[in-house]
Amino acid sequence: MAGRARVAARELALMSRAAKDATLHALADALDAATDRIVAANAVDLERGRNGGMPASLQDRLVLTPERVTAIADALRDIAALPDPVGEIVRGSTLANGLQIRQLRVPMGVVGMIYEARPNVTVDAAGLGLKSGNAVILRGGSAAADSNRVLVDVMRESLAAHGVNPDAIGLLEGGHDAVRALMTARGLVDLLIPRGGADLINSVVLNSTVPVIETGIGNCHVYVDRAADLDKALAITMNSKTHRPSVCNAAESLLVHESVAPDFLPKALTELAGAGVVLHTDERASAIATEAGVPFAVATDDDFATEFHALEMSVGVVSSLDDALEHVRTYGSGHTEAIVTEDRSAARRWSAEVDAAAVMVNASTRFTDGGEFGFGAEIGISTQKLHARGPMALPELTTTKWIVEGDGHVRV
Amino acid sequence: MAGRARVAARELALMSRAAKDATLHALADALDAATDRIVAANAVDLERGRNGGMPASLQDRLVLTPERVTAIADALRDIAALPDPVGEIVRGSTLANGLQIRQLRVPMGVVGMIYEARPNVTVDAAGLGLKSGNAVILRGGSAAADSNRVLVDVMRESLAAHGVNPDAIGLLEGGHDAVRALMTARGLVDLLIPRGGADLINSVVLNSTVPVIETGIGNCHVYVDRAADLDKALAITMNSKTHRPSVCNAAESLLVHESVAPDFLPKALTELAGAGVVLHTDERASAIATEAGVPFAVATDDDFATEFHALEMSVGVVSSLDDALEHVRTYGSGHTEAIVTEDRSAARRWSAEVDAAAVMVNASTRFTDGGEFGFGAEIGISTQKLHARGPMALPELTTTKWIVEGDGHVRV
Repeated sequence: MAGRARVAARELALMSRAAKDATLHALADALDAATDRIVAANAVDLERGRNGGMPASLQDRLVLTPERVTAIADALRDIAALPDPVGEIVRGSTLANGLQIRQLRVPMGVVGMIYEARPNVTVDAAGLGLKSGNAVILRGGSAAADSNRVLVDVMRESLAAHGVNPDAIGLLEGGHDAVRALMTARGLVDLLIPRGGADLINSVVLNSTVPVIETGIGNCHVYVDRAADLDKALAITMNSKTHRPSVCNAAESLLVHESVAPDFLPKALTELAGAGVVLHTDERASAIATEAGVPFAVATDDDFATEFHALEMSVGVVSSLDDALEHVRTYGSGHTEAIVTEDRSAARRWSAEVDAAAVMVNASTRFTDGGEFGFGAEIGISTQKLHARGPMALPELTTTKWIVEGDGHVRV
Repeated sequence: MAGRARVAARELALMSRAAKDATLHALADALDAATDRIVAANAVDLERGRNGGMPASLQDRLVLTPERVTAIADALRDIAALPDPVGEIVRGSTLANGLQIRQLRVPMGVVGMIYEARPNVTVDAAGLGLKSGNAVILRGGSAAADSNRVLVDVMRESLAAHGVNPDAIGLLEGGHDAVRALMTARGLVDLLIPRGGADLINSVVLNSTVPVIETGIGNCHVYVDRAADLDKALAITMNSKTHRPSVCNAAESLLVHESVAPDFLPKALTELAGAGVVLHTDERASAIATEAGVPFAVATDDDFATEFHALEMSVGVVSSLDDALEHVRTYGSGHTEAIVTEDRSAARRWSAEVDAAAVMVNASTRFTDGGEFGFGAEIGISTQKLHARGPMALPELTTTKWIVEGDGHVRV
């Protein structure tokens, strides 16, 4: 399968932007036309999920209505409208000896994606892969098996009908052996991107011999500095925690400088609790919570290390900016770390010393997002340092190639 | 050791360019001053090597004369003169909501290097690491153990004397267990770069759980197209093969279009053989060699897959540009692939369809080199697609960080 994907990748790499965009529109139209077939397959997944006791929140992520199918197809049209990263000249110069060198963006080749429930990821990943000239091998969650199979079938049929090698989009089925084969297909798979929970990502990182980009582990903090504007701090805390608690750029911990904690925390804890947030407070924060009459549990080290991905938050009082930085070094996952402060020097130290994909100054952690950054698309948020860090979009799915043009040049 | 390196890395990341450059000059001066001590330690390595039957060519790579120590120290001064990649703004914009975002280059953190004989790599890697704000953990070849120990001791003493944390430069000693610990130090080591033979590199890639950049596997080809200028082709062939046969950007295979083979090969084979190159020729090239009275062995598939790193070359006649492309796809290692042609369309196809770090048009394969590309330094040549491809210098030792500045911004 990876070998067939490689052949397709060679063809994709040579497609013009116009041809790729036309193909994306054709895929979108094909998905629209197949709405009934897709919704019917999705109903089988949903039925299986309900019988297996799938929680309502997961059912909601899995369900495909005709409106959602339209949205998925429109996402492909949006990708078609994005600039093509392939062929972009990253650097170039004419050397002293007259050699002309330039570094161009080229597709990676074959990109594997391993992800969990949502069937829209299947189409998004295929579309981003196609636009960036890559063949994709998709491994979705078993909960969405029937939906994914139909989505990929429809796209492959459309590719074939438009003269594009259908192996540009492959769905990896089969058991754990199939996944293991994908993770060790050195020379056939150029990049593997796991998207999902920490267990999935760790398993892929530890067992892969092909290059991997880790995504989406986010133990994000909001630090309210002693020079914070407390109104901004409250708005940023509430937004970071409650705007969409299940995602990786939601905040999991609140740190408050001791000099503003007596002013800030009674209000913040009351408002968080009022929004349904379960609070895990350290000793000093617990004392304030008690006084404010806000329910809390005493935070353990584990609580500070936990990504709740839910309406739950650990809260600590720190004695200094240094203590806050040390806390983030200990517990942070290198995703997004926010400071709220009006003090330029504190903001400057936070920006310089926090080691993370994104540092927020007086802004919600929720802004670490390809869409918010204006990328027009997102394949995941990298929390590693190699190749890509932070939101990944089309350019992050490319590598480069040096073209060196001479006229019989030799080294002396 | 990696934990201590991480602490040093935090300090290095905050050093100004001026402080880093002053430190590099101090290291260079310290090495100059310690020339006798370095040469004496090197003599111990050499003595051990001679007693163990080390080949003369390896002894030559290992030996440190006072002149070579001066050159090694001067290389540090050259690194000081290079621009600092840290802090460079890669991208940035002001979003519609007024958020100001910018992506800055920041150091990786802790970079491990595993390499073989040459002791100058020890100092080069330390200097490039320091300039890019990274702590390095160096694992050199056992043949240079005494030289490396003294070089690192001298540099660490100089760091300490200048108020820089000496753990910025660490030498990993001990057996295979130590190397295995380095390869699996997830969260402590940010990047591992193996430099050396294929066995070393494969072992590191397969056994590491920390991110790795593969370097230096080079099965490079020169393809002489039917539209080649045969004088340029001869010069490029000779230079690619014989200029420095032991390195990764030397050519290992010559492919010649059948329509120019009768003209080109008699002269080329004669000249290669005259330069001492052992020839492995396919059936058609063998016929020409026979006629020209040039000694040859009949090439096997293995010969075409072999990086000789010596005065030895496989030679094949191909029927078309497509056949040449297919041959390179089959046997190439994705390092450097050269075409010699005056035909713009052939050059364009070669540049587009060859999947390699560098494509040469009418130029020697030997130009794939950080120094030749004007980078001023080189830490290795990446033959993988993730993060860096081709010659790696200071920017390739950095990652990025997004800084997002708002004024109480929250997502709606």
